[in-house]
Amino acid sequence: MSPDPARSLAPIFQPRSVAFVGASNNFTTMGTVQMVNTLRGGFQGPVIPVHPSEPVVLGQKAYKRLTDLPEPVDLAVLIVPTAVVLDVVRDAIQRGIRHLVITTAGFREVGPEGAAREAELRELAAGAGLRFVGPNCIGVMNTHLGLNTTFFPYRHAPGGLSLASQSGTYITQTLELLARWGISLAKAASVGNAVDIDLADCLDYFADDPDTRAVGLYVEGIRDGRRFLAAARRCTARKPVVAVYVGGSEGGARSGHSHTGALAGPDALYDGVFRQAGILRAPDMASLYQWGWALASQPLPRGPRVAVLTHSGGPATSMADAVYRWGLELPLLPEALQADIKKRIPSTGSALNPVDLTFSMNPKLLGVKLPHMLLSEPGIDGLLIHGIQGSSFFGAMAEMARGLVNIEVEQLAEFTEAFVPPLVEMNRELGKPIVMSGFFGRDDNMVKRLQDGGIPYYDSPERAVSAMAALYRAGRLQARRG
Amino acid sequence: MSPDPARSLAPIFQPRSVAFVGASNNFTTMGTVQMVNTLRGGFQGPVIPVHPSEPVVLGQKAYKRLTDLPEPVDLAVLIVPTAVVLDVVRDAIQRGIRHLVITTAGFREVGPEGAAREAELRELAAGAGLRFVGPNCIGVMNTHLGLNTTFFPYRHAPGGLSLASQSGTYITQTLELLARWGISLAKAASVGNAVDIDLADCLDYFADDPDTRAVGLYVEGIRDGRRFLAAARRCTARKPVVAVYVGGSEGGARSGHSHTGALAGPDALYDGVFRQAGILRAPDMASLYQWGWALASQPLPRGPRVAVLTHSGGPATSMADAVYRWGLELPLLPEALQADIKKRIPSTGSALNPVDLTFSMNPKLLGVKLPHMLLSEPGIDGLLIHGIQGSSFFGAMAEMARGLVNIEVEQLAEFTEAFVPPLVEMNRELGKPIVMSGFFGRDDNMVKRLQDGGIPYYDSPERAVSAMAALYRAGRLQARRG
Repeated sequence: MSPDPARSLAPIFQPRSVAFVGASNNFTTMGTVQMVNTLRGGFQGPVIPVHPSEPVVLGQKAYKRLTDLPEPVDLAVLIVPTAVVLDVVRDAIQRGIRHLVITTAGFREVGPEGAAREAELRELAAGAGLRFVGPNCIGVMNTHLGLNTTFFPYRHAPGGLSLASQSGTYITQTLELLARWGISLAKAASVGNAVDIDLADCLDYFADDPDTRAVGLYVEGIRDGRRFLAAARRCTARKPVVAVYVGGSEGGARSGHSHTGALAGPDALYDGVFRQAGILRAPDMASLYQWGWALASQPLPRGPRVAVLTHSGGPATSMADAVYRWGLELPLLPEALQADIKKRIPSTGSALNPVDLTFSMNPKLLGVKLPHMLLSEPGIDGLLIHGIQGSSFFGAMAEMARGLVNIEVEQLAEFTEAFVPPLVEMNRELGKPIVMSGFFGRDDNMVKRLQDGGIPYYDSPERAVSAMAALYRAGRLQARRG
Repeated sequence: MSPDPARSLAPIFQPRSVAFVGASNNFTTMGTVQMVNTLRGGFQGPVIPVHPSEPVVLGQKAYKRLTDLPEPVDLAVLIVPTAVVLDVVRDAIQRGIRHLVITTAGFREVGPEGAAREAELRELAAGAGLRFVGPNCIGVMNTHLGLNTTFFPYRHAPGGLSLASQSGTYITQTLELLARWGISLAKAASVGNAVDIDLADCLDYFADDPDTRAVGLYVEGIRDGRRFLAAARRCTARKPVVAVYVGGSEGGARSGHSHTGALAGPDALYDGVFRQAGILRAPDMASLYQWGWALASQPLPRGPRVAVLTHSGGPATSMADAVYRWGLELPLLPEALQADIKKRIPSTGSALNPVDLTFSMNPKLLGVKLPHMLLSEPGIDGLLIHGIQGSSFFGAMAEMARGLVNIEVEQLAEFTEAFVPPLVEMNRELGKPIVMSGFFGRDDNMVKRLQDGGIPYYDSPERAVSAMAALYRAGRLQARRG
């Protein structure tokens, strides 16, 4: 069942114009920061401030009230005192504005008085056919459009992972961390108290959104299980969904309730809902982001049989052990393939699977030749590689060698980068997933190149394995549906 | 039972002089890099190259053979072709050198011929009372002495966590990652094939080492369970030990065997050994480092009751849920304390536990006043704080505000830094653990200050909880022994 097009969230995630009610020239207020973020983020449409007294806000002509706007905006963002929220909503309705983000808090989550206010808001909106995110939320983001009504800048490339979260923090304060990890987002919504638009609406929207290749959910509690299940099943039929649920314990339920007024339920109940919906459950937010990244960028493996390739015995063994713990398989390679590999690697290496080159720094072997041999093997469904790195390693060596020998870091970086495009290409051509790890960050030229080429690269071998397992599980969930 | 002092590892971890056999002026060889690392690391004693033809190596007078040295060195590091290892060991014995690091590979891990070579090495060493690390290892490190015979620089401050590892990678390639995470090391040894010095010897040494406040072990397989158990029990009676074991699965056992010739055993067996030894088992290397950091820097809590303090509802709820999953408790705060907190925080906040300030950026409240109130409460054994950050947040805001308002990032950084020393001091004075998280890195002035003040600060709320749980479990293990 498709959602009603008239109730589409397109004007919220893809507005042509945005008004900010509560932005001013005082940078210490949230509304100002949110408006600045949208101005600075590269959003192309009009960004219009609404302020009772200032004629110009952040360089833009301001209007006293929403009713004064010369024409309706697609989206109005409200960051006003709790006491005036309803009045501003009435203004919006009067001006023909049909989509809001209500950032203001002080509703259900603060007790009975707030709950009464929230009921009034709900009634008002329903009567006017208004659709809104919040209240008590951070806002929305569309990185492909430069739209970011949250209070923290998005400084990474647009990506394929979309998030819907009952916490604003997980789509704002984590943006820099995600950029450091190399993870890019498509769209994101902090649903707050989710009085109107909730996780189910977001799932419905993301299901049809071509920019969204995978979805991540942060869940404190679901009110309408039936609606959630329907939307989730519709979404998971098209793209993988991964969720964190934090309300299953006494502490989590209590904290979620005072955070967003969420009504939590037992862990086992949510496990069941997620299973029925075809949603992958992640144990923590780091896993949600990291698995979501792999799900948004890699093909799903046809089976559990993986190869591990590395030049380092410790991470090889960590990966090999984690493969089993995560329910994957590490088959011995066919003898002919073993023999072929043996010819190419040092005598101290191993060709059993893991394939361990030991101390060989031949980037073509590790980055192109062996990956191609392993991915071409019909008995291998996916490839884990640990240890490809570039400038950060050379840089450290060059620093050590200073005054002794001259290491041309830039030349080495260029030399090694030549091996990234073939790996990225074989990833696409052979249609099997590649997941990588290494201990260097995006300041390393190879790490950056690989990540930007769509290959997830984690700072932990075991994490890389868990992401491969997420791909495998998502594939099984999909197959069960199909 | 104390170890035999004559067999002490002091000359290996605290040598007064080191020779490198196999270092040259060719920077592409491992031995050269290892020697450079020790020269550059700040090691104060003589660093002497041994090379068959070059008279000067890396600016130091070289000797043709170890037998040519004017006097014995405390430690000789061998990075020579496999075929000549035994000859060089004979030279060492002849020159009265009693401690070696044998980096060279090509022994038990490569098959029967290597195993025979290894047996010969063992016999030779035993006959001469030689003690050695390796073969097939990366070397040793003493950050307090600037000693680092591995091939990667240690560029962080000296710390309290010592590592013994059957993988060299986990004490070399991870050094930059650990520095980025804020984790500092005391000593480290890559034991390789562990023909002589093994994990048990390292545990014995670390038990008595005043610089070592906690120990981390990477284990592929333990040959002499009885000896390991005795050394581990002696060590855990004095300081916490955390271990990763990767040989418990078919894949892990196979990989470990071709890596270091390790003989692995079933997971349950190792679980039992670790439990008897009072060793905490970690699920992966990231946890080993991260828990080890907390164990080396924080007091152990007297009980499982923690308080969670934050200005962010999502991480508060993640922490609250993780607290239960990790076997800790999150008691409701006493009503008088709740009332006292309520007076100080915004009306949208919560004082139940988690204490959530919501959108309040008052650093004194979050960083000093509330932590003191919570840690002083007798019913609270430890404190988790999420969200203290400084310059990286202001910096992002300042960048957004550019041309609109002027944010004095440096002034704000100085202002916020004033709140770190009182928190560090109350941590020591009240003797209860503080573990923190936030999504910014060490480029943030507050994160750096807190970490350098001895407070573990992770990039994930759930990770912070897991580290607090490690402290609690280590405390229970200690109490059971005492």
